[in-house]
Amino acid sequence: MIKITLPDGTLKEFSEGSTPMDVAKSISEGFARNVISAKFNDTTVETVTPLTEDGSLVLYTWKDTEGKQAFWHSSSHIVAQAIEELYPGVKLTIGPSIENGFYYDVDLGEGRSISDKDFPKIEKKAIEIARGKHDFKIRSVTKDEALALYKEQGNEYKTELIENLEDGTITFCDHDTFTDLCRGGHIPNTGIVKAIKILSVAGAYWRGDENKPQLTRIYGISFPKQKELTEYLELLEQAKQRDHRKLGKELELFTFSQKVGAGLPLWLPKGAALRERLENFLKKAQKKAGYEMVVTPHIGQKELYVTSGHYAKYGEDSFQPIKTPKMDEEFLLKPMNCPHHCEVFNFKPHSYKDLPKRFAEFGTVYRYEQSGELHGLTRVRGFTQDDAHIFCTPDQLDQEFKNVIDLSLYVLNSLGFTNFKAQVSVRDLNNPDKYIGSVENWEKAENAIINAAKEKGLDYVIESGEAAFYGPKLDFMVKDALGRNWQLGTIQVDYNLPERFDLTYKGSDNEDHRPVMIHRAPFGSMERFIALLLEHTGGNFPLWLIPDQAIVLPVSEKYEKYAKKVLNSLENDEIRALLDNRNETVGKKIREAEMNKIPFMIIIGENEEATNTISVRKHGGEDLGSISIKDFSDLVTSEINSTLKSF
Amino acid sequence: MIKITLPDGTLKEFSEGSTPMDVAKSISEGFARNVISAKFNDTTVETVTPLTEDGSLVLYTWKDTEGKQAFWHSSSHIVAQAIEELYPGVKLTIGPSIENGFYYDVDLGEGRSISDKDFPKIEKKAIEIARGKHDFKIRSVTKDEALALYKEQGNEYKTELIENLEDGTITFCDHDTFTDLCRGGHIPNTGIVKAIKILSVAGAYWRGDENKPQLTRIYGISFPKQKELTEYLELLEQAKQRDHRKLGKELELFTFSQKVGAGLPLWLPKGAALRERLENFLKKAQKKAGYEMVVTPHIGQKELYVTSGHYAKYGEDSFQPIKTPKMDEEFLLKPMNCPHHCEVFNFKPHSYKDLPKRFAEFGTVYRYEQSGELHGLTRVRGFTQDDAHIFCTPDQLDQEFKNVIDLSLYVLNSLGFTNFKAQVSVRDLNNPDKYIGSVENWEKAENAIINAAKEKGLDYVIESGEAAFYGPKLDFMVKDALGRNWQLGTIQVDYNLPERFDLTYKGSDNEDHRPVMIHRAPFGSMERFIALLLEHTGGNFPLWLIPDQAIVLPVSEKYEKYAKKVLNSLENDEIRALLDNRNETVGKKIREAEMNKIPFMIIIGENEEATNTISVRKHGGEDLGSISIKDFSDLVTSEINSTLKSF
Repeated sequence: MIKITLPDGTLKEFSEGSTPMDVAKSISEGFARNVISAKFNDTTVETVTPLTEDGSLVLYTWKDTEGKQAFWHSSSHIVAQAIEELYPGVKLTIGPSIENGFYYDVDLGEGRSISDKDFPKIEKKAIEIARGKHDFKIRSVTKDEALALYKEQGNEYKTELIENLEDGTITFCDHDTFTDLCRGGHIPNTGIVKAIKILSVAGAYWRGDENKPQLTRIYGISFPKQKELTEYLELLEQAKQRDHRKLGKELELFTFSQKVGAGLPLWLPKGAALRERLENFLKKAQKKAGYEMVVTPHIGQKELYVTSGHYAKYGEDSFQPIKTPKMDEEFLLKPMNCPHHCEVFNFKPHSYKDLPKRFAEFGTVYRYEQSGELHGLTRVRGFTQDDAHIFCTPDQLDQEFKNVIDLSLYVLNSLGFTNFKAQVSVRDLNNPDKYIGSVENWEKAENAIINAAKEKGLDYVIESGEAAFYGPKLDFMVKDALGRNWQLGTIQVDYNLPERFDLTYKGSDNEDHRPVMIHRAPFGSMERFIALLLEHTGGNFPLWLIPDQAIVLPVSEKYEKYAKKVLNSLENDEIRALLDNRNETVGKKIREAEMNKIPFMIIIGENEEATNTISVRKHGGEDLGSISIKDFSDLVTSEINSTLKSF
Repeated sequence: MIKITLPDGTLKEFSEGSTPMDVAKSISEGFARNVISAKFNDTTVETVTPLTEDGSLVLYTWKDTEGKQAFWHSSSHIVAQAIEELYPGVKLTIGPSIENGFYYDVDLGEGRSISDKDFPKIEKKAIEIARGKHDFKIRSVTKDEALALYKEQGNEYKTELIENLEDGTITFCDHDTFTDLCRGGHIPNTGIVKAIKILSVAGAYWRGDENKPQLTRIYGISFPKQKELTEYLELLEQAKQRDHRKLGKELELFTFSQKVGAGLPLWLPKGAALRERLENFLKKAQKKAGYEMVVTPHIGQKELYVTSGHYAKYGEDSFQPIKTPKMDEEFLLKPMNCPHHCEVFNFKPHSYKDLPKRFAEFGTVYRYEQSGELHGLTRVRGFTQDDAHIFCTPDQLDQEFKNVIDLSLYVLNSLGFTNFKAQVSVRDLNNPDKYIGSVENWEKAENAIINAAKEKGLDYVIESGEAAFYGPKLDFMVKDALGRNWQLGTIQVDYNLPERFDLTYKGSDNEDHRPVMIHRAPFGSMERFIALLLEHTGGNFPLWLIPDQAIVLPVSEKYEKYAKKVLNSLENDEIRALLDNRNETVGKKIREAEMNKIPFMIIIGENEEATNTISVRKHGGEDLGSISIKDFSDLVTSEINSTLKSF
């Protein structure tokens, strides 16, 4: 008998040689039908692997990340078999699961290629194989046996892989007529895979080395239900439509220039204005919350960042120091605003009565990213943080932290993010030497954060050991409209920089004390936040934020004069409106206004002019009929006020 | 007889050997009494130099810059004589006039020095000499005679100077018992100098070379009337009081940090808020004028600035290129925003119907200045331009230029600058090859500027040959409250960058055309403009701009509650107000509020609380008596509206 421990702590005895599936069945037959993968003593095993010793077992279903990985890895075997049958003589190399699906790299041989026209036949063949309900079976082979198979096939890739393995560790996985060199981690049988989609093909070098042969990489994804594939493809299409790079260009928000440089966005008028509205929104709330704006330069002496420790962190991998003509000074593009704000704090001596000081700045920072890592506005080389640093006494930390949570929640709610969690990162109590600052202060800070999260009713988790060496923090994890997670609005406690910059204040005891610092940025950066907003809303920004709130569409040039009068009225009511007086049909103008995501289309014709009204059509098609300009302005105002409360 | 042409074109005949003073007397005895210097055929001469050929003669009085130069240069001789008498054995070197006054560099000899305690005795001796009404007399000497004199005195400096001169060109100037090696340019006699002030002493190396002996430089100034000296010294004292570096620190507007680096201002909360008010003021006007804001990064690839030509201009003497870890890319801190705005223009193709495009940005640029050249906010290494670039058709230039003048005048008037001139810089018609762009476009542009200046009623001068190679421009020369000139608000036409960046628009003829660019910045830079405003107003900013408009001063803590109520009311009325509830006398609080330049002091005591009023005292002392809070708010609003019209 062997003793098996389950994740909930249950200890059960089984006869030696029992499989994970046997354990699953002992829990319930229904559960066992869903189990597709397992881990025994932290090693991935098959559901049919006989267990021969005591240990802890985790059973996975499709709902688990590990379950999906086994599912997709198994699917890559099925697709590989399909390709082998459709492209005889193809040489297989590797076929792992990835975050969403799997790929298989193959050498199709001279003169053969796969294009999207071939996808349906591969999918058809693969699903036929899947329907055969073939078991996945792992078997150990000797190195010689393994080499013999692939030498016979003339597959130099697998041969090379096997050469690098040690005898006794080599396994093959069989299903149906297909065999592959494989370490394991499969679902019970091919029949569980009900839907397979080939997504794309790309070139890939063998072992990622551009001096080695180029292979064909086939990307695919699979699901246990056809419906899930359909939903996934819809999501993919939506994500493509909502790609902020595509929308940013279409809506003329920002652009990139080869001459200015990759990763350095140029904000076009509509984007710059949107950014400014976001900044003004936060400025207003911050003013109420007692923040003071400062302005600091985008460079600083290298020494500044040596003091702050940023040079040690960013120095070598980032933009290199800026030298001067006589080579006697060195400056750095600032990777962070904090050192500058510490120097602002140091401008004059402080008393405990002056604290907290809250310095805020929309500070543009520069960090070098490899050009391959750049991605629209989410991975850039220059970005503007909605940064602030609070300098307070340890006793004020509690209240200040709560205030920052309030502000962060206000920002999330005003921008339409309702689905989020908080993650509180605290010390690893087993590694006390890792952290700077007194234990007393750490306890105070961690308790302050947890109490604040509790009191503000946040849905939060505590992650031990995830704190930075200089202090605990809280992050908001926001789910966007497509269900993707974004980390936003870190609130970080810092005991380190006040030490490094020798920040002090005179206490009521007339002695010098160290203030605590809080770093915080509810948006994170203007660039990343606007990218997120674009993808979350698909460009249909909240009404208070959207570049153009309305467009006036005269049905013919006869009504241009009245249309201009309407435009003027709207502008006087501070509604951002455009006029489309091109000589085009109203149908075409409406279609373009829809594409440009303009919330209200104001149609002007004979009847409207005669009755001094406007006909209003909402983005998406809803017809609001004929109303007065005043009623329309009130409508816009009340719609804005319903989402944008004051802080 | 010789023929003498005067500046007004008059041609007169005089007997050979007549002096400039003879010519002056022929005009009028009264005028002659004021003549102190002259230029004959573009060479400075003495008023008593005999004229021996035909030529053009300019006569100068104290009112002319050249007259002042002769006056101050002559004064340096007088001071040198005084020093020679007070410090026997002193070795004189050189003693030129400068922008304000003169200096003389002397070698006092081992163990001797001059301090400010010695100034009165030097001044007394100098003025005694001046009162002797000694004529200044130039005489030619041979090189041998000249060398003999200074070798006898053991003056190696003068000897060195003479060694470098050619025989036949050497002159001495005598007055009283004093003789100096001198090229000429003196006033008739010492008696014209009625007031002499020694201003300071400093160290100076012989010939500016730090490997050569150190001399004592004595700075002085002199005037034809004692009253003028008194006024000058008052101005000097005022300038010291108004020094923006002093005020900026006292009013907590900005600071500098050794760690961040010299010449890189940190804007403190009050300064940052003031800056933002100025920016918002201009943004509002610019919006009405059809400008669109953009945001661009603070760096760009080196190639961008090679294209623009800025690398050739700033490259070697400025901040050096920023390299990347793999050394495969090079970036530069941007010295100008124009290249970025050209790339914004290039974002998409344009039709003539889209033009003009007016892109504005508060763009921070970085230029390296030697640390010795840095000066507060007026000479910095990083500054924010209120920049904009207008891209228009050649036909639109005329109207666009007028619009920019309107905007510039609006800015100057709103900020209290009423004393200014315009300078129009045009081509040198004798050097047509110096300029790029067609003659037709140049004529169009120059005419556009001159017509605009005329039509807008500007007091302007035209300076031939002062245009940049790429286009003509207009500068505003603004006189501040102390009578000093500042160049502000350049409006520059540019044919060069549109070429370099290959900017085009489709004309109505469906052909590609080159747009014209206008660069303009009404403030110049936020840093320099705020420095100017500080020095112009002495910190008493216009009410709409000043950091704190009012301060509430309860006479004792008994009235703190009412004081807070008043403060709240003011804040609700959007008046920027402070509360001084320290346990100090009202007298002391008023004195500090005066120092802090706060326009309104609101005194709160028993009577005010009882009658629900406030007692208002204006900065400077005017008592407005007891009024209601509402009346006070109205007063502030109407005072603001009287200076700040909308554009």
